[in-house]
Amino acid sequence: MTHEKTLNNTNMVTQVTFSLPQRKRGYHLITSEITKQLPELPESGILHLMIQHTSAALTINENADPTVRIDFETFFRRTVDSQLPYFEHTLEGDDDMPAHIKASIIGPSVSVPITNHRLNLGTWQGIYLCEFRDWGGSRRIVATIVS
Amino acid sequence: MTHEKTLNNTNMVTQVTFSLPQRKRGYHLITSEITKQLPELPESGILHLMIQHTSAALTINENADPTVRIDFETFFRRTVDSQLPYFEHTLEGDDDMPAHIKASIIGPSVSVPITNHRLNLGTWQGIYLCEFRDWGGSRRIVATIVS
Amino acid sequence: MTHEKTLNNTNMVTQVTFSLPQRKRGYHLITSEITKQLPELPESGILHLMIQHTSAALTINENADPTVRIDFETFFRRTVDSQLPYFEHTLEGDDDMPAHIKASIIGPSVSVPITNHRLNLGTWQGIYLCEFRDWGGSRRIVATIVS
Repeated sequence: MTHEKTLNNTNMVTQVTFSLPQRKRGYHLITSEITKQLPELPESGILHLMIQHTSAALTINENADPTVRIDFETFFRRTVDSQLPYFEHTLEGDDDMPAHIKASIIGPSVSVPITNHRLNLGTWQGIYLCEFRDWGGSRRIVATIVS
Repeated sequence: MTHEKTLNNTNMVTQVTFSLPQRKRGYHLITSEITKQLPELPESGILHLMIQHTSAALTINENADPTVRIDFETFFRRTVDSQLPYFEHTLEGDDDMPAHIKASIIGPSVSVPITNHRLNLGTWQGIYLCEFRDWGGSRRIVATIVS
Repeated sequence: MTHEKTLNNTNMVTQVTFSLPQRKRGYHLITSEITKQLPELPESGILHLMIQHTSAALTINENADPTVRIDFETFFRRTVDSQLPYFEHTLEGDDDMPAHIKASIIGPSVSVPITNHRLNLGTWQGIYLCEFRDWGGSRRIVATIVS
């Protein structure tokens, strides 16, 4: 068990808003694409990312084997889309209401600790963009750094 | 792709605790009810909301068509409540254990970026109170603003 | 309806990283184990906890009846593990891919308001470590306090 403790007395809030290009339906590793959009990170703090949409989501998961991301799609398609016959909100397409439900199951935001000017993710952790629509368009992210 | 960057050097933490009146089981749009409870928002920061209960939740989802919120109820009733025959924790009613599970699937808190003194939600995003009990009573929220 | 409002002008970010000993697969109440690892809490703020793994998760749920935590295991085993025949990512064991999916459904982090130098959880709320692997090993947590 190790301990680290850092203090930061020059607090501030920094925000950056940016768009990610359209991706196909599925789960996409975007860690490096996110970090490229950010200013120099503070010594310690929190990075909060929120996606400004209700049919896509952000999460943190395994960053190595692409079949993990394929199995995410398989699981949610079988679990959520199979309920489509019972849904009323279908005017925007068969993929729309399942997308809203998945968006709240996964969630619109992630918060990542910042330590020594870097995102302090675990070795196997990466940030995923979860695109639930067949044609979702570009996706807008608000990044807020609290330090 | 656009960029915004704001700095705020007069940091503080502001907290407000308040109760929402009892609502019927289901998914309720509460964005304006929340913002009415908050003090003037800072130029930039994060609003963190936590519900102090384990059978209700907060999420962000579609703010326009009420059938989205009906379909949320349909999905979670079919997916979680259908497992009731396998549950042991049933003394507090048939709606109790499913409510606990939904509370952790959706989550007890949301964090929303604050930009230009306003919540920086996407056009179609609103804050939902998810009431999973048949008779949940009033629900207590702790709002923390970090700026 | 009651209101509390606290201001804190001596902001800082404090971080502590620690490991929790290996636990068996299931849902474990760790509130007091977490608070023992933390420095004295500020008057007001936010505690952010992130688990640095992709097959375990953190959540907040009922802190009293142990059958709640048993039913969590029952629900997620029936709902997620039953999809195993459809998964491709199976080399690391039958419990691995379901663990990744549960990790994103529950989420890797919780944020808890700090009020009057204490975690401001509801009466019935506790912090859960959700261990999804049969043999998960020790689990590393990054705690960040923003005040």
